[in-house]
Amino acid sequence: MAVNLRAPEIDALLAIPGVELGAAYAGIRKAPRADLMLMRLNQGARTAGVFTQNSFAAAPVQVCREVLAAGGPVKALIVNAGNANCGTGAAGVAAARRSCDAVARLLGCEAREVLPFSTGVILEPLPVERIESTLRACVDSLAAGNWGAAAEAIMTTDTVAKACSRSVDLAGRRISVTGMAKGVGMLAPNMATMLTFIATDACVSRAALQTMVREVADVSFNRVTVDGDTSTNDSFILVATGQAGNEEIAGSAAQYPVLRAAIAEVAVQLAQSIARDGEGATKFITIEVSGAREEAEALRVARGIAQSPLVKTAFFASDPNLGRLLMAIGNAGVEALDIARVNLWLGEVRVIDGGGRAASYSEEAGARVMKSAEITVRVDLGRGAAATTVWTCDYSYDYVKINAEYRT
Amino acid sequence: MAVNLRAPEIDALLAIPGVELGAAYAGIRKAPRADLMLMRLNQGARTAGVFTQNSFAAAPVQVCREVLAAGGPVKALIVNAGNANCGTGAAGVAAARRSCDAVARLLGCEAREVLPFSTGVILEPLPVERIESTLRACVDSLAAGNWGAAAEAIMTTDTVAKACSRSVDLAGRRISVTGMAKGVGMLAPNMATMLTFIATDACVSRAALQTMVREVADVSFNRVTVDGDTSTNDSFILVATGQAGNEEIAGSAAQYPVLRAAIAEVAVQLAQSIARDGEGATKFITIEVSGAREEAEALRVARGIAQSPLVKTAFFASDPNLGRLLMAIGNAGVEALDIARVNLWLGEVRVIDGGGRAASYSEEAGARVMKSAEITVRVDLGRGAAATTVWTCDYSYDYVKINAEYRT
Repeated sequence: MAVNLRAPEIDALLAIPGVELGAAYAGIRKAPRADLMLMRLNQGARTAGVFTQNSFAAAPVQVCREVLAAGGPVKALIVNAGNANCGTGAAGVAAARRSCDAVARLLGCEAREVLPFSTGVILEPLPVERIESTLRACVDSLAAGNWGAAAEAIMTTDTVAKACSRSVDLAGRRISVTGMAKGVGMLAPNMATMLTFIATDACVSRAALQTMVREVADVSFNRVTVDGDTSTNDSFILVATGQAGNEEIAGSAAQYPVLRAAIAEVAVQLAQSIARDGEGATKFITIEVSGAREEAEALRVARGIAQSPLVKTAFFASDPNLGRLLMAIGNAGVEALDIARVNLWLGEVRVIDGGGRAASYSEEAGARVMKSAEITVRVDLGRGAAATTVWTCDYSYDYVKINAEYRT
Repeated sequence: MAVNLRAPEIDALLAIPGVELGAAYAGIRKAPRADLMLMRLNQGARTAGVFTQNSFAAAPVQVCREVLAAGGPVKALIVNAGNANCGTGAAGVAAARRSCDAVARLLGCEAREVLPFSTGVILEPLPVERIESTLRACVDSLAAGNWGAAAEAIMTTDTVAKACSRSVDLAGRRISVTGMAKGVGMLAPNMATMLTFIATDACVSRAALQTMVREVADVSFNRVTVDGDTSTNDSFILVATGQAGNEEIAGSAAQYPVLRAAIAEVAVQLAQSIARDGEGATKFITIEVSGAREEAEALRVARGIAQSPLVKTAFFASDPNLGRLLMAIGNAGVEALDIARVNLWLGEVRVIDGGGRAASYSEEAGARVMKSAEITVRVDLGRGAAATTVWTCDYSYDYVKINAEYRT
């Protein structure tokens, strides 16, 4: 049950000139729903990505890193849901390459120009022959207007497809940005979310695109957490097709921050969609931490709150159990934290004043905020000017149910 | 529902000469069950402690640190359940001191010779007048044989009282050790568990006792986790009454490791009891990590597995979802981990061989191990000689239920 999240209106998703998408059912997921997605890119498109920091990076992540490090063009992305191709050793890497080979044969490009992605169960061999036999159907369905169908094809335990668009004017040219994401559990991205693909028709230099993908990940996917578990398959890919006819944007260009802002808007909306659709989520929670000495410190506190099982179950229960918020702040490892300077608000209700319960606080006021489906927690550490925001969801019976029954 | 854990047989708990215990109902907990516990120590007893590393250390923890730092004798410990006296600011510290004053008046000692402890709801004012009015009943019930009743009086969401004894011969003298603990949630001790009190009648030098309490915490309470949330009130106190008539044990004495081993046995049993009685626990899980470069690295991996919500829900479901174990190992932040050298066993079943699924592994064999109420996970990182063990439990619907309904 996603929190205030609807599937995107197909018409609201902007086609990106240079990008075509196709989807089909390969039988890798059990549910008979499209589970294979192909994205074809135009000649001249530039691609950058960031990937999971988990040591057990999945086989496709290893292949993607190789391809992007080589610096050649990327012509296609192939994505399957239902199997993560992770913990599968050399055979897994070979299976990922075989899927790239199959794409290359059908599209008339080189296998080293194809990026593979997988998401689903870990430690099971990838049934790559099902990808090979289904690819033709993906190719046959390639179309620029297929972002909605493509976003559905990459879902696993997601209950809602996640995609959105923005447009922005750059030196008189209309630039479009469209992205899709999937992921609702094993989700505490560190460099990237599970799978996110964003494309723009802007022309961007290779170096600027690589910088931008990291900067955007930092303000979006690296700010969302469902359960604190970082996936082995996290990948965030940013494509610039260069079809908009604008002058190439370098990192120093005045247009760079304008384009980055539009892409970040798409990324933040997708990141928030992930928390709204978090496994078993009944509440969407925004944690704003200010007054930190540096941003990393603010992030540690915000993540500490967002990932505490006790805080998350209290949100589920709509119980203003504020002691748990204090506990989580205190556990964040902030050196020499002066608790007498810590202030905290639940929505607009002042809760903690100077490290203790605010005199004006009432249980009724706290309970009123906790009943809402969207809750903002604001913490002021009172020791500096750095701040950050993290998005998360609560822990419900259904989180346990979904994860206890995932493979059954 | 605790996992293979029964309340201690009262007769099996050894009295410790020099220690008397009393308990009574002060009405701080809602349930009408003893919630106030007084421990009186003999003249000459020595006391050492370690406390939570949470920045929001509770008021009684602040007072305990002061008392122990001053180095004077400790004559009594006063413990209430039902209210943590945390996040209560200067008023909370004053309330803790008032409870020490009351003890001092009744026992004829100084308030600075009394250690206060609280456990329960955070951020509520401590109703210290209820402690004051109930203390007389505690004093009246003081007896050396009261360890069982005392262990019951400090329980909060514990379902089973936790206490045990050992004895050991030191240079011809019989030495007794008895301890009690409470704590089943907000439990990832960092220096100490929620509340643990262990006493021995051995005579130990003050310096050796302080060293011993840290060493014992490191191999017991710092190796158990229920939900990864470190409490604001964690305290582990070790008392040596010196009534056994042995020669004083210094840190360099041959008897030191013998006594430490007996105390560690009590501590480990109490620590394991905590995981067995973990909130909602249906499984008791031992995580053994070897082949690490250093112990801290082994501990990071073991805790990473023990605290992953996805691993814990898989244990609850008896689902050998081994990918989640890989994910958790990969997230532990082990630098330059060569996954091809990682091996993993579930009970006696070889699961991961060189970073991938073992050829001999079958789903049936994995499922058989997962069905058991006591499961051992062994990980060999293949990069060094350091090892450690961590104890934990699974995450069930009841963990969410208990914590969603804690205050209602």
